[in-house]
Amino acid sequence: MSGEMKEITSRDVDFAKWYTDVCVKADLIDYSSVKGCMIIRPYGYAIWENIQKELDKRFKETGHENVYMPLFIPESLLNKEKDHVEGFAPEVAWVTHGGSEELTERLCVRPTSETLFCEHYANIVKSYRDLPKLYNQWCSVVRWEKTTRPFLRSREFLWQEGHTVHATKEEAMEETLKMLNVYGDFLEDILAIPVIRGKKTEKEKFAGAVDTYTVETMMYNGVALQSGTSHYFGDGFARAFNMTYLDRDNKLQYVHQTSWGMTTRVIGAMIMTHGDDHGLVLPPNIAPIKVVIVPIGKNEDAVLEKSYEIARTLKEKGIDVKVDDREKSPGFRFAENEMKGIPVRIEIGPRDLEKNVCVLHRRDTLEKKEVSLENVLEEVIQLLLEIQENMYLRAKSRRDSMIHRAKTKEEMASVIEEESGFVLAPWCGDKKCEEEIKEEFGITSRCIPLEDALTTDDCICCGRKGKFMVYWGKQY
Amino acid sequence: MSGEMKEITSRDVDFAKWYTDVCVKADLIDYSSVKGCMIIRPYGYAIWENIQKELDKRFKETGHENVYMPLFIPESLLNKEKDHVEGFAPEVAWVTHGGSEELTERLCVRPTSETLFCEHYANIVKSYRDLPKLYNQWCSVVRWEKTTRPFLRSREFLWQEGHTVHATKEEAMEETLKMLNVYGDFLEDILAIPVIRGKKTEKEKFAGAVDTYTVETMMYNGVALQSGTSHYFGDGFARAFNMTYLDRDNKLQYVHQTSWGMTTRVIGAMIMTHGDDHGLVLPPNIAPIKVVIVPIGKNEDAVLEKSYEIARTLKEKGIDVKVDDREKSPGFRFAENEMKGIPVRIEIGPRDLEKNVCVLHRRDTLEKKEVSLENVLEEVIQLLLEIQENMYLRAKSRRDSMIHRAKTKEEMASVIEEESGFVLAPWCGDKKCEEEIKEEFGITSRCIPLEDALTTDDCICCGRKGKFMVYWGKQY
Repeated sequence: MSGEMKEITSRDVDFAKWYTDVCVKADLIDYSSVKGCMIIRPYGYAIWENIQKELDKRFKETGHENVYMPLFIPESLLNKEKDHVEGFAPEVAWVTHGGSEELTERLCVRPTSETLFCEHYANIVKSYRDLPKLYNQWCSVVRWEKTTRPFLRSREFLWQEGHTVHATKEEAMEETLKMLNVYGDFLEDILAIPVIRGKKTEKEKFAGAVDTYTVETMMYNGVALQSGTSHYFGDGFARAFNMTYLDRDNKLQYVHQTSWGMTTRVIGAMIMTHGDDHGLVLPPNIAPIKVVIVPIGKNEDAVLEKSYEIARTLKEKGIDVKVDDREKSPGFRFAENEMKGIPVRIEIGPRDLEKNVCVLHRRDTLEKKEVSLENVLEEVIQLLLEIQENMYLRAKSRRDSMIHRAKTKEEMASVIEEESGFVLAPWCGDKKCEEEIKEEFGITSRCIPLEDALTTDDCICCGRKGKFMVYWGKQY
Repeated sequence: MSGEMKEITSRDVDFAKWYTDVCVKADLIDYSSVKGCMIIRPYGYAIWENIQKELDKRFKETGHENVYMPLFIPESLLNKEKDHVEGFAPEVAWVTHGGSEELTERLCVRPTSETLFCEHYANIVKSYRDLPKLYNQWCSVVRWEKTTRPFLRSREFLWQEGHTVHATKEEAMEETLKMLNVYGDFLEDILAIPVIRGKKTEKEKFAGAVDTYTVETMMYNGVALQSGTSHYFGDGFARAFNMTYLDRDNKLQYVHQTSWGMTTRVIGAMIMTHGDDHGLVLPPNIAPIKVVIVPIGKNEDAVLEKSYEIARTLKEKGIDVKVDDREKSPGFRFAENEMKGIPVRIEIGPRDLEKNVCVLHRRDTLEKKEVSLENVLEEVIQLLLEIQENMYLRAKSRRDSMIHRAKTKEEMASVIEEESGFVLAPWCGDKKCEEEIKEEFGITSRCIPLEDALTTDDCICCGRKGKFMVYWGKQY
């Protein structure tokens, strides 16, 4: 890297410091005087816009509609569902005054909007003909966290929250799993992050849910990040909020409900899955700029002209491209574009032009390749596909190599001491064992995987007959 | 209308009641237990999404980037610019507790984000090379209003706020007017609402601005609605927030600043400009559904097939279309789709099919026309263009007929007594006269128009030499 370039901590020296360095130096975020909140800068927000576009398309294709609910929830409304309020009340921000007047009832800033959706659905759903209702909301929510980190844990964050009501338990469960798979496919196909699709234990599930499903991802350092959740609520909220409908036989029934959410946290997941000591590495399918063209030499007209000509050719094919012709050294420009994780760099100088070639540099492996100017479009398209695939496979192979099986506490202890990553171990289903593992090893149950979950091995904790295989790990 | 259909108040009987009836019965909004806030339902939100798409495209084409700032503003930060805090402090919501702990400093929920942008710009702008910065934010803001109405005045509303900083006064002023024209063109070309582009008086300008520009629109009942504003700040905030940069000569300079915003209020403007006693009337350029196809008769296969065939043909040309084949009477379906303001309805029954025709019904004039099934695509495309143009021209001609000139207080008095709409009258520029007019006639200055503003006539209030022509009127 050029001496002018802002350096970052090495990923293997101090992962936490490396992470915040990348967030700041890749111009994703900035801090402000609002403690615990972050500013999402244009480059970070452009990534979020692409995430929104991809998810929103998938939501609409599966029949969902967007709505907007109020930012505030009256205290009495939040209190209506017992488990829910217990889970959220300790971490909400309270509005007590409007202008100079004290409010007669406190309002919390929404930490999540189940209660508002319930009230609305109770109001608009009357008959089986009104079902299902498949709503989603894009908004920001607030949770008063004590310690915060950009994207991962922040007092305010951006997200979408889907809330649906259905006539039957089966339909609601189908929706819960459908949206879990929308999340899983999105993470794998677009963000190139391998996921484990699974179910949370009773201890780890969402406040008020019957079942919580999760897409769990593993970061470069082996730590788990819960990257999206989908909840099946049964009729618990329906009973608390009196959400009923008349069925075909004119009988009053409770609706069955789901909710599911994904947040700006997945930007953190992407950074910590793919990033390296040069900074961010973005999968082509989400990168706001897929190709940067860096003309080299003293701004010769012919080189500049060719650069813009290539840019036009790529743009016509729908490839987001930027020409970086700033009056800075090539080294500086290379380093800065690498910091921002742009998947492909095209380098072109006077001698390349003479030879009718340019150099393609790929961000994921940092490899270079000379290609003929005639083939540049085809080569770039091919390379973007290759990078996307390689990033996924590389992350998956790394993750798989960091999943360790254990059958006894001793094995678990030695794995945890020597390795980072997940431990896959049998569990009897008893909350006490789960708590004991957490106490003893500092790891929590990530999920019971949807595939190959059953086991006949003994519980890793108590030695009684095991029920499920569970992924255990440290979490963000 | 069918007897089953929900009826609304007549527009000419009780305009205010008609307005809220349309908001509710066209499924745009719902109320909740959060006083003064509204739920934006799927159909209302789909309109907002189209507005966002159109505006965002225009912002990006003019070089702007989106960012996201925190929801909260610490009291000390809000207090930094004197005029600004005086304008907003009386109407902000205050967060005083996070979880069970009292905060050491109160945070207000953003009523607008100038102060946060200023702090950020002070942090990231160092040199003339960093300028201009052209940022925009899509978010919700909160103002603790005493009386509220859907879309027009609500304690929380959705908007975009652009905030830019520039090296020179000239550039900042150019930006201010450029964005005013983006708003004006958007309102006229997309929402079919004629606008008056003008400048606010000192009395009516934004808290902290040097100049506020506005796009003023007139509703069906003659009342004014400020539909977008663009502010030139000079270096007032720059001095308060120490926003400086080194110029080409290495001298420290203050930046020059603008901000501009448009809100969900324009949905209200659209309702009140175009709506009628059948409900909403949407301009084709913004309608989420441009064409609804209503098959008539006992769901004969051939009719249904033809309906879906037409739908496919339209969809392929990018026209948003819906087939309404619900088991409801044609009258019910006609009325409900009219309530929702869908620009074109295609009616097709067994006899039409025999004759190889269908009926096109246009929402703006409620006129029908029989067309050959062979030409249906071309006819629909042509009709959508005609409706868009007609809606604009009709609104403009109505508005123009409701602008009344007055040269004396007596003329103003008689105009106000006999007519609704705007009064166009000369003004000397003295705030006292402006206050006197408001006191005496209950109308405020809407704006000094950008075109034909100068006058030599005497001030309508004091009789001294006039300076500007001013539009006066009642406002929402």
